[in-house]
Amino acid sequence: MLGKLVGPDLEEMLANKAFDLVRQTIEDLHPADIAEVLEEMPRESSAIIFRIMPRNQATEVFEYLPVEEQSHIVSTFGTKALASMLNEMAPDDRMRLFEELPAGVTKQALATLSPSELEVARELMGYPENSAGRYMTPEYLTLGPDMTAEEALVHIRKHGAGRETLNMLYVVDGRGKLLDDVRLSSLVMASPETKVVDLVQHDVITISAKTDREEVVGLFEKYDRVALPVTDSEGVLVGIITVDDVLDVAKQEATEDIHGLGGVETLDAPYFDIGLFSLFKKRGGWLAILFFGEMFTATAMAVFEHKLAQAVVLGLFIPLIISSGGNSGSQAASIIIRALALREIQLRNFFKVFSRELLSGLMLGLLLGGIGFARIMLWERLFGTYGEHALKLGGVIFLSLVFVVLFGNLVGASLPFFFRALGFDPAKASAPFVATIVDVSGLVIYFSVASWILSGTLL
Amino acid sequence: MLGKLVGPDLEEMLANKAFDLVRQTIEDLHPADIAEVLEEMPRESSAIIFRIMPRNQATEVFEYLPVEEQSHIVSTFGTKALASMLNEMAPDDRMRLFEELPAGVTKQALATLSPSELEVARELMGYPENSAGRYMTPEYLTLGPDMTAEEALVHIRKHGAGRETLNMLYVVDGRGKLLDDVRLSSLVMASPETKVVDLVQHDVITISAKTDREEVVGLFEKYDRVALPVTDSEGVLVGIITVDDVLDVAKQEATEDIHGLGGVETLDAPYFDIGLFSLFKKRGGWLAILFFGEMFTATAMAVFEHKLAQAVVLGLFIPLIISSGGNSGSQAASIIIRALALREIQLRNFFKVFSRELLSGLMLGLLLGGIGFARIMLWERLFGTYGEHALKLGGVIFLSLVFVVLFGNLVGASLPFFFRALGFDPAKASAPFVATIVDVSGLVIYFSVASWILSGTLL
Repeated sequence: MLGKLVGPDLEEMLANKAFDLVRQTIEDLHPADIAEVLEEMPRESSAIIFRIMPRNQATEVFEYLPVEEQSHIVSTFGTKALASMLNEMAPDDRMRLFEELPAGVTKQALATLSPSELEVARELMGYPENSAGRYMTPEYLTLGPDMTAEEALVHIRKHGAGRETLNMLYVVDGRGKLLDDVRLSSLVMASPETKVVDLVQHDVITISAKTDREEVVGLFEKYDRVALPVTDSEGVLVGIITVDDVLDVAKQEATEDIHGLGGVETLDAPYFDIGLFSLFKKRGGWLAILFFGEMFTATAMAVFEHKLAQAVVLGLFIPLIISSGGNSGSQAASIIIRALALREIQLRNFFKVFSRELLSGLMLGLLLGGIGFARIMLWERLFGTYGEHALKLGGVIFLSLVFVVLFGNLVGASLPFFFRALGFDPAKASAPFVATIVDVSGLVIYFSVASWILSGTLL
Repeated sequence: MLGKLVGPDLEEMLANKAFDLVRQTIEDLHPADIAEVLEEMPRESSAIIFRIMPRNQATEVFEYLPVEEQSHIVSTFGTKALASMLNEMAPDDRMRLFEELPAGVTKQALATLSPSELEVARELMGYPENSAGRYMTPEYLTLGPDMTAEEALVHIRKHGAGRETLNMLYVVDGRGKLLDDVRLSSLVMASPETKVVDLVQHDVITISAKTDREEVVGLFEKYDRVALPVTDSEGVLVGIITVDDVLDVAKQEATEDIHGLGGVETLDAPYFDIGLFSLFKKRGGWLAILFFGEMFTATAMAVFEHKLAQAVVLGLFIPLIISSGGNSGSQAASIIIRALALREIQLRNFFKVFSRELLSGLMLGLLLGGIGFARIMLWERLFGTYGEHALKLGGVIFLSLVFVVLFGNLVGASLPFFFRALGFDPAKASAPFVATIVDVSGLVIYFSVASWILSGTLL
């Protein structure tokens, strides 16, 4: 919103080379707002503004930029400016920037880190993608269990500068093993001589560094914390994850699931930031795959072409029948995908889910089948549309709908499970993907039911 | 996970009336874990366990339960137990419980609140549903601008107990107007004589009490805070919102969007907690509406029945053509729904989005049309499937796909805008809903193109 207001002014100032004016204009803005303004500007302009901002402001703004923007800016930087920028970034944000950069740039960027920062980066990089290890920051502060509250506060004053958060402090033993966490507010509220060990609540929740990020989101949701500690297999504290990163992860996961369900590759940038051609690529690939799958409908129809020629009336209901299966499949897929993402159901619940969806698919099939049958009978009564075979035709529509809706439901409910079992994202079981499977099989079901019921009469 | 382990043991203990054993078993568990166990038990059992837990533990566990469980437990409680429980809850959590309760129970519950708690509840209730006012808590602590850091810490020790968070403190003037917020850690780190006014960063972000919760999530994502202050139109501090509530809201919003996109009423409880029949109702309604919409395909087909009888070959490609439109519509809808939810695009961007999707729809239509044309020509070359009219048929398929995919794309991209403009949730523009519109119009497009190109030959 702000960007729309300030952006054009800034661009005019740049055109007039009024750099001092630019500096003054953005001086009092919040770094997040400046980042927003920069995102909406052409990249050449934002790179210039970046250069004329004071260094400390530039660093703050940089951290608020999306990774793609950061990566662009990094690539326009000289080594010295780069080093200073990277060294000031929070380790977890820097890590995600590295993941995004082309390998050559990453190498250059890593080379610019100070030795101690480099060690941190290397440590963070050893963990698998999307694991807690990638999101943790080593910028926490630890306390000894035998410190008093007063000593702890003195310790915090001395060593607290530059930590990602001081809201939670971590109590570790001599070998770095995590004993518990304690709130800064508990230390402040406690009488000065209370021992830290007596302030902890003995309910520390720890995350393993290899935990999947989706599960990390679940832990934060469940326990309402602002930060959680990450430990290695020995229980040694190796980092903490803060809730602001978790909120970002939750947003990304939801975006992936929504785009997945719609049958699109996840867009990793805001809508207007994606070029028309790259949008085309992200959609065209899946659309073409679905199209090839859907071609089997033409193949299936060709098999039944002579039946269609005998009873053209059957053709009228093809879209109705197959789309009903696709719709119930979309519903089931969206429910199961979300339940899997929120860990309400697990892989091992498959048979329980399957039998539940067998039942509900049957109920829904009977509902739609009933409506379909009533439609045929009503039209016949009102307009005499279908002639002497109306009842049989009604039967075909009824039975086909029951089977197709049931089948669609089972496909929609099962596919996300299969995808997860195979190690893919369950959200890739998109509504269009389910619909394509159901379209092809729905035609086979429909014409089989029709051949069976109408044989000897219409067929 | 834990529930699966402890739950059955607990039920056995209950059956044996070994209540002391139950109490011991859950004594050392985290309240969130107990809540999880209770959720997975039959409601009679969980109500009993609730009664035998010590009161303070019960209160803590209660806050972790989903609102539906809370509402059930409340309805089984006597007024006295209820009063004690409600009075201990955080005001914002209590508010959401009230929203869920049947009116009679709410009235009874409100009557049990202490006068001061009642005032808080009334204050929270005046704000529209899903507004920031509903999620804020009045349990924050304020500081005067002229306090020193040391005085502020003394003030916090004296008045800090029972506040929702002490991580952020709020600096207000004599009339309650919010001047800024300050981190507890800044107070701790500052030298004792520093004035509070010199510690603030002059970058306070405020939320209006009427702000929509979706926007609140956006603000937290943008500014990486653990709590944000809520002010009224005069800038007076009226509450704060904490990030744990925001994480819950983000989760609910994503669930609504994913279920919406799949064409289901949002399920407001975990998958296995929803009865088969209420799941049927949540799905059957939409499915029946879609079915009625889809019936127009039969009507449209009936109009073209004689053409289909003349050229049965046209029937073969019906599913392929209409589903391609539905697929591109699903893609567009998922992209636009998510972009609207993340506020990457606004209502006023409609024409920009529309013209973008006009272009990308055309590109995608040309892609699929090209593949479809190639398929016809290839089959003709290989098997001589389509005879002398193959080229014309290829032309029909090509042109129909271009138009149908383009049309589907525009419907999928526009519908979420229309829904938002009408005050509905854009996510109600579900993939099945878009597909239904496109199926009906796709048939009309297909047969119109066919009539035009094939007139005088096949038709």
